[in-house]
Amino acid sequence: MAASQEDLLLKIQEQGDLVRKLKAAKESNERGKGFKEVYNFEEIDKHLSHYSYICGYVPSKPDVDVAKALKSLDFSNYKYIKRWWNHMRSFSDTEVSLFPDFRQPNFLKYNSKKILESQVKEEVSKLLALKAQLVTEDAGPQKFTLKTPKGTRDYNPQQMTIRNNVLDKIITVFRRHGAECIDTPVFELKDVLTGKYGEDSKLIYDLKDQGGEILSLRYDLTVPLARYLAMNKITTLKRYHIAKVYRRDNPAMTRGRYREFYQCDFDIAGVYDPMVPDAECLKVVTEILEALDIGQYILKVNHRRLLDGMFEACGVPADKFRTTCSTVDKLDKSPWEEVRTEMINEKGVSPDAADRIGEYVRLNGSTELVEKLLKDEKLSKVKAALEGVEAIKTLLQYCELFGIKDKILFDLSLARGLDYYTGVIYEAVLTQPIKIGNEEQTVGSIAGGGRYDNLVGMFDSKNKQVPCVGVSIGVERIFSVLEAKLAAGDITVRTSDIDVYVASAQKNFLEERMKICAELWDAGIKTEQSYKKNPKMLNQLQHCEENKIPLAVVLGDSELKRGVVKIRNITTREEDEVPRNDLVQEIKKRIDNLNLNQLNGAT
Amino acid sequence: MAASQEDLLLKIQEQGDLVRKLKAAKESNERGKGFKEVYNFEEIDKHLSHYSYICGYVPSKPDVDVAKALKSLDFSNYKYIKRWWNHMRSFSDTEVSLFPDFRQPNFLKYNSKKILESQVKEEVSKLLALKAQLVTEDAGPQKFTLKTPKGTRDYNPQQMTIRNNVLDKIITVFRRHGAECIDTPVFELKDVLTGKYGEDSKLIYDLKDQGGEILSLRYDLTVPLARYLAMNKITTLKRYHIAKVYRRDNPAMTRGRYREFYQCDFDIAGVYDPMVPDAECLKVVTEILEALDIGQYILKVNHRRLLDGMFEACGVPADKFRTTCSTVDKLDKSPWEEVRTEMINEKGVSPDAADRIGEYVRLNGSTELVEKLLKDEKLSKVKAALEGVEAIKTLLQYCELFGIKDKILFDLSLARGLDYYTGVIYEAVLTQPIKIGNEEQTVGSIAGGGRYDNLVGMFDSKNKQVPCVGVSIGVERIFSVLEAKLAAGDITVRTSDIDVYVASAQKNFLEERMKICAELWDAGIKTEQSYKKNPKMLNQLQHCEENKIPLAVVLGDSELKRGVVKIRNITTREEDEVPRNDLVQEIKKRIDNLNLNQLNGAT
Repeated sequence: MAASQEDLLLKIQEQGDLVRKLKAAKESNERGKGFKEVYNFEEIDKHLSHYSYICGYVPSKPDVDVAKALKSLDFSNYKYIKRWWNHMRSFSDTEVSLFPDFRQPNFLKYNSKKILESQVKEEVSKLLALKAQLVTEDAGPQKFTLKTPKGTRDYNPQQMTIRNNVLDKIITVFRRHGAECIDTPVFELKDVLTGKYGEDSKLIYDLKDQGGEILSLRYDLTVPLARYLAMNKITTLKRYHIAKVYRRDNPAMTRGRYREFYQCDFDIAGVYDPMVPDAECLKVVTEILEALDIGQYILKVNHRRLLDGMFEACGVPADKFRTTCSTVDKLDKSPWEEVRTEMINEKGVSPDAADRIGEYVRLNGSTELVEKLLKDEKLSKVKAALEGVEAIKTLLQYCELFGIKDKILFDLSLARGLDYYTGVIYEAVLTQPIKIGNEEQTVGSIAGGGRYDNLVGMFDSKNKQVPCVGVSIGVERIFSVLEAKLAAGDITVRTSDIDVYVASAQKNFLEERMKICAELWDAGIKTEQSYKKNPKMLNQLQHCEENKIPLAVVLGDSELKRGVVKIRNITTREEDEVPRNDLVQEIKKRIDNLNLNQLNGAT
Repeated sequence: MAASQEDLLLKIQEQGDLVRKLKAAKESNERGKGFKEVYNFEEIDKHLSHYSYICGYVPSKPDVDVAKALKSLDFSNYKYIKRWWNHMRSFSDTEVSLFPDFRQPNFLKYNSKKILESQVKEEVSKLLALKAQLVTEDAGPQKFTLKTPKGTRDYNPQQMTIRNNVLDKIITVFRRHGAECIDTPVFELKDVLTGKYGEDSKLIYDLKDQGGEILSLRYDLTVPLARYLAMNKITTLKRYHIAKVYRRDNPAMTRGRYREFYQCDFDIAGVYDPMVPDAECLKVVTEILEALDIGQYILKVNHRRLLDGMFEACGVPADKFRTTCSTVDKLDKSPWEEVRTEMINEKGVSPDAADRIGEYVRLNGSTELVEKLLKDEKLSKVKAALEGVEAIKTLLQYCELFGIKDKILFDLSLARGLDYYTGVIYEAVLTQPIKIGNEEQTVGSIAGGGRYDNLVGMFDSKNKQVPCVGVSIGVERIFSVLEAKLAAGDITVRTSDIDVYVASAQKNFLEERMKICAELWDAGIKTEQSYKKNPKMLNQLQHCEENKIPLAVVLGDSELKRGVVKIRNITTREEDEVPRNDLVQEIKKRIDNLNLNQLNGAT
């Protein structure tokens, strides 16, 4: 990548400053006075090859002085300074303020006339080289690589059409269940996000401190919802929220994993009878997956109380429940043997306990598994486990009433990563790969959620709880599948829905076209024309065909003189004349007919 | 607002640091040495009440030293320091590096033993007071003030309904004109935004450098569009983009000015005949303002070439065109006298030239003004001015064809702030205040835009231009007006659109309700029920009335035994029985009838 003109100018300015300072230092040196701001980086680098800090083995104020001075240093020749600099950056302002105030050692600064002379020469020649570069670069536009930030993407009109179609289907289901819509800012006070995501907190995007509040981009829509409920003292709400969230993860964009991505959340907050809203969340997910029609799926369910009870029954100490749970969560990607090893070696679970857990997490099924667990010798003695199993029993019963029980898999290996779940947890998984062109793509998990009864209380000054349950649809994976289908030619989309194109057969019809366009627009008809004064007829018709515009109004000399215009059906290429004055009505009639035909064709 | 525990701990730490430093200063003072980092802010504030800077009337290194030292100063007692600090922050790093290196004046630091003694005492007592506060606060859940970041807001369901209604109307108009939809990430590489916004660049939100790319939140949707076009080598596009943008401005939220706010942009890119797409942008604005029905408006238009030509004709040197233009832009808020003073005193325009400009900028009108200017002695000699006026002439002609000429005001005082405009510029202004309850609110400017032919080229390595013209609708002001109307009871909104509520008259009907809900949902009917096992009949009906749900299915023992259910019309309170097996069909029929009645009622 070539340096941009701006960069170059900046470098020249900085190099110029340095030369000026060196010359001044040389002068004042000759007058016997030190010039404090010119550091000898060669010497400093040499020193730091042996010592941790400027004054030895503890950081001190001289470290701070040097750090300030080298803000714009090119580190490529100073590898020890670079190591030290990265280290210095890790200190907080408070830590820095506590550094002892040692005297600056002599090697820091240029202090011999000789060094200065050669140094001035060297820096002047660097400056000249930079200026020479300026001349050979042409004074063109900026030259940095044009791209979107890592892990993000633009949506072109076709991709937007796909995206909006998917979101519309999801919103239709959300609203069918009476959910209201809310929105929150893209960033929150950093404090709001602190302590909510466990290990994943490192993935949060922070904003730069530009004076004022310390902010972070939202990581999900659940914590902002909890903040919203607590802040407004709302105790019941059924809401959906569709918005982008931000995670500094390693993106795998072809598989629909981004740093900026959409979440579609549906949550029910309020004190209700057990499992009634929880079952509705599962019903919502099935309706969405049916509407999207992307293949067979199952909804895995489990319960955090059962997991806790299971860990207890297997002999895991209570303070290791959460961390053991995160390890179980890896079972969808890793085999049991690996998970077992991690439990024992990293989480400190005993091999016996791990083996007992291994017995349970391979279990999955439905009502018969519930009955089996209720009679399980170990589990039936643990209160939490029994509560969890009873809850799943109720959930399965409600799912049967909702007609979705055949989609539900009670799976003891389902754990979910996030700390804040307290009850039922669920995850929707596509069970077959999706065919795209001649290839197949595995999608896997496509929605997830659960109950979190304690999150809102974390924001309330009196710790007042608002129990919540919800589900989040992972639309990016759906987008990426549909986009792949589009690219493979399996589906097509129309990115604009223009009904009428106003064309002219001969020259000099711009004014007449404009008048007709205005009439059609004012009648609410979706209309386009060429922005050229004298477009070619062929180009105009081609535009209609490419954009699947069904009708064209074609203006011609002879017709206008007779007070008529031609209407052309783009598909059939039939043309007929209608009186100029009846145009709007005629067009409306034809659009209605086209829509009717399309409807009938579809049924 | 109580300070949070964390804030308090931080304050204690900082106060402790200060006390420690003061004690050290006192000690070293007693040993006859100054301690460089303890500044006497009282003295500095007094000094700055008379002087611009620490060393008089030019900024110097001592200003930088003090600025660094007061990072965490509470400004409330130091109003002159605050003024100076705000000023200091406006210097760039490069400017700062060029400040002369004066000696620090004596008043800067505590230099008398006496002051230090009393000072140490005072600060120690402050520290003790802070620590006392710490003890009395109990260690409950987190205690920071729950709020959204400065200048941002949540949207509750009613506000979302208003917002979505407004956006739907705008999208309908955009799509009627054949615009396609695109989307871009919320942040861009900082380089993309650099050098595009002139003085306003200081309002850009930067992300923290967490390793990797340097990013900023988007400031508008125009620069991302230009980046998108250049990056994808797109030369023609008619697109709309509705998304939030971010500006670290001083918010005036009651008037709809936020730091996070929506923009609705419509732009046409491509090489076309003059003023054809430009006129369509104006047509789009009129259709939107008509659809929103928020009162009378005018569309002011002007042309950057005409402004340049006018400045030339008035004797402004070419290198001062842009800065003079920014000054003219203030005419919508300031009287001519103030603008004239700024031109002369700050922009270096001669008084004569300013007076000549003053003659022109008071002109506005329509075709007759075009004719007058074409004959104007001074303007007609300047090529740029003639080009501009001719362009406006064509624009007015096209606006007449579009039937919107009566809305257009050719106004020589319209300048628009942004640097990148190259041709026509426009601004839509509401001409009458809006009535809200018993009060009236002035809204003013509600849309703006213009032609920018050189922006895309700034991103292209070969400087290839893609001429563009577009307009941006300022929806936040519209939202705030409608929300005020909602609060005043002038309008009402429905936040969910449930058609049927499934209620039970007696206990133990949860299961039956669930089955019926599932049937209705599966038939695509918007249905709700209580999440309680045994809700009270009265509460269920109240819920329907409050949420304007038109129908309820009421389950009762006797009816179910007879194989029927009751349907209740919530408005008329009429109930009748239908066979349980025909329920879905019956409900569909009634919803269709209700919709039909509503339609007929509306026409």
